[in-house]
Amino acid sequence: MIPRDPEQLLADARQGSRAALARLISYVENAGEQHLATATLVYSPSSPHVIGLTGAPGAGKSTLTDQLITTALRHGSFAGANPFTRVAVLCVDPSSPFSGGALLGDRFRMQDHATDERVYIRSLATRGNLGGLSLAVPDAVRVLGAVGFDLVVLETVGVGQMEVDVASTADTTVVVLNPGWGDAVQAEKAGILEVADVFVINKADRAGTSETRRDLERMMDMGPVTSWRAPIVETVAADGRGVEDLWEELARHHHFLAGEGHELRRRQRIAHELDRVLGALLRESVHTGAAADRYEEQLDALMSGSTDPYRAARALLFPA
Amino acid sequence: MIPRDPEQLLADARQGSRAALARLISYVENAGEQHLATATLVYSPSSPHVIGLTGAPGAGKSTLTDQLITTALRHGSFAGANPFTRVAVLCVDPSSPFSGGALLGDRFRMQDHATDERVYIRSLATRGNLGGLSLAVPDAVRVLGAVGFDLVVLETVGVGQMEVDVASTADTTVVVLNPGWGDAVQAEKAGILEVADVFVINKADRAGTSETRRDLERMMDMGPVTSWRAPIVETVAADGRGVEDLWEELARHHHFLAGEGHELRRRQRIAHELDRVLGALLRESVHTGAAADRYEEQLDALMSGSTDPYRAARALLFPA
Repeated sequence: MIPRDPEQLLADARQGSRAALARLISYVENAGEQHLATATLVYSPSSPHVIGLTGAPGAGKSTLTDQLITTALRHGSFAGANPFTRVAVLCVDPSSPFSGGALLGDRFRMQDHATDERVYIRSLATRGNLGGLSLAVPDAVRVLGAVGFDLVVLETVGVGQMEVDVASTADTTVVVLNPGWGDAVQAEKAGILEVADVFVINKADRAGTSETRRDLERMMDMGPVTSWRAPIVETVAADGRGVEDLWEELARHHHFLAGEGHELRRRQRIAHELDRVLGALLRESVHTGAAADRYEEQLDALMSGSTDPYRAARALLFPA
Repeated sequence: MIPRDPEQLLADARQGSRAALARLISYVENAGEQHLATATLVYSPSSPHVIGLTGAPGAGKSTLTDQLITTALRHGSFAGANPFTRVAVLCVDPSSPFSGGALLGDRFRMQDHATDERVYIRSLATRGNLGGLSLAVPDAVRVLGAVGFDLVVLETVGVGQMEVDVASTADTTVVVLNPGWGDAVQAEKAGILEVADVFVINKADRAGTSETRRDLERMMDMGPVTSWRAPIVETVAADGRGVEDLWEELARHHHFLAGEGHELRRRQRIAHELDRVLGALLRESVHTGAAADRYEEQLDALMSGSTDPYRAARALLFPA
């Protein structure tokens, strides 16, 4: 029997129970009191080192993640930093109906690791959680941290705001592209420059690699000058080429993060999460219970034109 | 001298003053009291008919918009509906530094209309507005409505959440693609099906049109069954081919909207805007004045681990 009490589950998961760990993550994935109880239980201002991988479907994120796990376990740490003893993979797919620990179809490559007790692989989908996936992800990361996973690879399918929210949970965000991605650069340049700490051109044995590199360099040249310029790594994840180079860049970024501005970035990240929780609580507080009636009254007034959205919102937020 | 008082500006704009209209839109584009005063002044539960055009840069949105203006003025109305006497174009580009009524570089095609008093063209960028562009857009639409524009074409560059927020302001959302867009369908399918009322395959004289049509049909087949299935129109905006077909589909969707569920959709749209205003007010209320100190206190507590985001948010939202 798997217990239902978050504290007992956490104790069991620390002893190595995968079933207990899976249930804790399901708690933060779902809405309700158990989410809050678990989130409160595992909260810690420090969390595992999180590497985010994002990019279009088919870019090779799963294969690259697989290679990264192997590399992380072989190296055991970033130079000069704490060792990684356990590595977790969270696959975040907002459009996927699969969850509950089920391995996604394209995760078969990770099966080698599935029986390794130092590795935990889990997909995450939203199921009515307060604030959706963007709040479930940092909580799931902290569950993993509380259980002893010191490195988390966070894999997301790049779809707009979700991508940006998830990136805010990652310490290092890797944007995975393929050669010949020029058009997509056009389409997405508004969002992608901001989130990338490292660019990977995967399938770099194909034509168009140098053009894609040039496009990315040009994009960065046009952007603001920052203290960290995202390096561009070429990989062929299918056979492991370039993965060591990627690891070196990840280590270099980890080192960069530990330097100047570290506390400020931590604070900004926590503030970002606090703001998202605030928004979620606000929505909950105006849409449930007695407040729901007041909300409908204001909507009626808006429909008839007797108020405007700003007056209506003030009336809901600051009732007389 | 252009007045500064919103009521006087509105009166002047109704008399035809473009300078007054431009200033009113600048008010809602910017933060501050004049935004609120203007928004409250022009609020009306009914607004102009809004056609949203979204899609990647280079898809041909500007050329298509240009053709739509010509077509709208020629037809003068959708069959059986109120006539369009004046048409406005709002170009929303979150990544653009240009604003203040400046015509964007690629808007030169619209210059033919720029001297037509029935047409008003304006680009919109965010400049510190409460809630950003997603709140400025519905307010700008209502400014235009209050001044007598009965049709607004809202052109946005498709970038994630912004696109979805802007789509919620449009009565009909047109997603503009090009032939050979298959990969992008993969990448964006999570978001795009939900916002499209009409698909346009522009540059349909190029290879790949039938494949793109097939991809879109397949996407829709896999999605939920809805009472409106987005038609797919092929256009060559550069020479006007297919634009009449597009107009017919826009008219058909306008007719559809006027039917069953009309009031419910209006209510949902107004609720969506109210929620965005609520979120913006909340952020303002926790980040300014005396509340800002309490916010920093909660952040300090989070940094030290003595609270968690849920308790911190509750403390800020519901101070004892």
